[in-house]
Amino acid sequence: MSYEYIRYPVPLGADSIITFTTDFGLRDPYVAEMKGVILSGAPMVKLIDITHSIPPGDILACALTLERAVSCYPPGTIHLVVVDPGVGSERRPIAVISSSQIFVGPDNGFATLAINESDYKAYLIENVRAPSGRVSHTFHGRDIFAPACVHLARGGRLSDLGEEIEDIVKIDVRKPEVSVDEVKGEVIYVDHFGNLITNIREGDIKGLDRGRWVVRVGRKWIKGIRRYYSEVEEGDIIALIGSSGRLEIAVRGKNAEQVLGISPGNSVVVCRL
Amino acid sequence: MSYEYIRYPVPLGADSIITFTTDFGLRDPYVAEMKGVILSGAPMVKLIDITHSIPPGDILACALTLERAVSCYPPGTIHLVVVDPGVGSERRPIAVISSSQIFVGPDNGFATLAINESDYKAYLIENVRAPSGRVSHTFHGRDIFAPACVHLARGGRLSDLGEEIEDIVKIDVRKPEVSVDEVKGEVIYVDHFGNLITNIREGDIKGLDRGRWVVRVGRKWIKGIRRYYSEVEEGDIIALIGSSGRLEIAVRGKNAEQVLGISPGNSVVVCRL
Amino acid sequence: MSYEYIRYPVPLGADSIITFTTDFGLRDPYVAEMKGVILSGAPMVKLIDITHSIPPGDILACALTLERAVSCYPPGTIHLVVVDPGVGSERRPIAVISSSQIFVGPDNGFATLAINESDYKAYLIENVRAPSGRVSHTFHGRDIFAPACVHLARGGRLSDLGEEIEDIVKIDVRKPEVSVDEVKGEVIYVDHFGNLITNIREGDIKGLDRGRWVVRVGRKWIKGIRRYYSEVEEGDIIALIGSSGRLEIAVRGKNAEQVLGISPGNSVVVCRL
Repeated sequence: MSYEYIRYPVPLGADSIITFTTDFGLRDPYVAEMKGVILSGAPMVKLIDITHSIPPGDILACALTLERAVSCYPPGTIHLVVVDPGVGSERRPIAVISSSQIFVGPDNGFATLAINESDYKAYLIENVRAPSGRVSHTFHGRDIFAPACVHLARGGRLSDLGEEIEDIVKIDVRKPEVSVDEVKGEVIYVDHFGNLITNIREGDIKGLDRGRWVVRVGRKWIKGIRRYYSEVEEGDIIALIGSSGRLEIAVRGKNAEQVLGISPGNSVVVCRL
Repeated sequence: MSYEYIRYPVPLGADSIITFTTDFGLRDPYVAEMKGVILSGAPMVKLIDITHSIPPGDILACALTLERAVSCYPPGTIHLVVVDPGVGSERRPIAVISSSQIFVGPDNGFATLAINESDYKAYLIENVRAPSGRVSHTFHGRDIFAPACVHLARGGRLSDLGEEIEDIVKIDVRKPEVSVDEVKGEVIYVDHFGNLITNIREGDIKGLDRGRWVVRVGRKWIKGIRRYYSEVEEGDIIALIGSSGRLEIAVRGKNAEQVLGISPGNSVVVCRL
Repeated sequence: MSYEYIRYPVPLGADSIITFTTDFGLRDPYVAEMKGVILSGAPMVKLIDITHSIPPGDILACALTLERAVSCYPPGTIHLVVVDPGVGSERRPIAVISSSQIFVGPDNGFATLAINESDYKAYLIENVRAPSGRVSHTFHGRDIFAPACVHLARGGRLSDLGEEIEDIVKIDVRKPEVSVDEVKGEVIYVDHFGNLITNIREGDIKGLDRGRWVVRVGRKWIKGIRRYYSEVEEGDIIALIGSSGRLEIAVRGKNAEQVLGISPGNSVVVCRL
């Protein structure tokens, strides 16, 4: 099976899509510099921001963000990801293809949750040239990764970027302890609304549909796992399976992080009554 | 008259436009998930962010935002609006067409100020399918509204989405009390610059061009209604008709909300001298 | 040589690009109003946000932002720039072409660092019409500059916008004092990561590659000018030539502005050891 001809799945006549995920924020011109480089080389491309508000250097938040977003994009999409605290050091620039989507960025584990762990191919990025003719030591997003995306968006082969590699860095996302009557996990992400997202997936809770469960977070006990926010009253705490298939703790109409004083790392326990 | 053939007004060869207005913020992947769903189904579409910074659940701010923005967009534009505190409950997903523009979102009044109150058609969204094959209870933006936009952007009929309905929810935007010599209104919105925008429209102030008026806000009396900021000195308070046709209170070169300590709900009175 | 036929350099079949740089923030509909006006008149255009987070009225920050971003964009790009504290007053709306890129905005010096000072042409914008038929006194971005961009994106001539002018406003960006053994400059910009960017360029430091230098900022002495962040330990202060070719002060993995208490205006001295 060849992954090479990546443009096929994109509908005929459509522009290819490049998404952006960074910790650059929206104040500086850095994102726009990368976009300018890409549009200079691949003017028909469609540019989509996933987010530029990853906390600086937070690879886990980046991986969780990509896990959610990537599943919504069509085959052939190129994801440019620059959360890169090690820029300029010996960490490697890579391009990875998995499930017909491509990831371009530093080899630091950012794609751990978005790729199929047992079915991907990875390549070093060795053969691209910054349009300025000169690679800065502090902005590989503009000078290495964006040109690599141009190469790919124009239909170039992954294997032309550089040597294929077997091993890429993966981050260790702690898994919950799962038994029949109890699941012990933790809060791993807090979203814009203050909803507390855990590392417990729907499938970890055996017999969720039939059983009766309680959820403990901090000193609070929450009875039942609900389906949607409006099942409880304004201001009430609620546990539910969120839109990513993970257990979430929320406070209806309020910011659960602030109301409950809970943040990433806090333990969450689900027990059968 | 048929509203059905909505693609006609879009210039030949141009992509159709979908705008986004949400309270999702820019940190999480939620907006990008909706965009991925749309691009997967309607790859030629042009995606424009109106804002994702509506205060969580604030339907009035959303309605005021749309009122301004929508008037600048061409016929055939589809506006996806997800400020949806009641997601998952019995509130209805709807699509509304008015003045050749289409609004897709929850039936909670978000379009009150953007549609022509006496000339619109509204439809339930009943017949779309989430690409994942499964509708979450907490993210209808991705699983119902985005797929509905795909249907419409591909030229699908509004009536194919679901049953036509007569009544949609409207929010009650308080109107000013208008007499010949006085208009009593209030601040309804504060923008990024701290300018205080009121519910008093230019037309509410009779003889604005000829008369002499004073504006009272908090304990301040402002003499005259001006045309532009630089008519007063740096740091001076000014009343003027803003770019939306509403009376605004500003402090030149400063943040009026902070300087004056005024916020939405504060009364504003315009009197003839 | 004629600058008129500006569409030539854009690759055949590609949409022309309009970038946006403003101090409007992302909360209000102002940016989306400008985009709607542009898409109504020039639907095939590609819209790219450089930033909307220029501090209100800060022309220098705007000029520095454009200096970086513009160099990455292809010939024929149109840059719409609205940092416009003098809106509605007698300041002039202008369009400037330099190095085959076009700048549209108020004549307040915003393009000082992005244009070639000895090779540009500038025109008043006198002949465009707001789509609403009426020009507001407070939002020329929507009512004058966006329509001017439409004219240009459709292949219209610069000279049709208005009279050619000789003089445009330039801002005075303080230059460092350069001698063989010492360069005295200052911090002029702090980015999202807290990195302190100075007005000292790589070329100002004679024999940078061979010499030994120390950098003084506040009460700190930094030994050496490095190539990338990971040359020092986490938490260490570092001086390096950043991706814009300017001397930057950073604290590895931390926010240098906060750690060092340094902000724009603080002096930075580079001395040969």
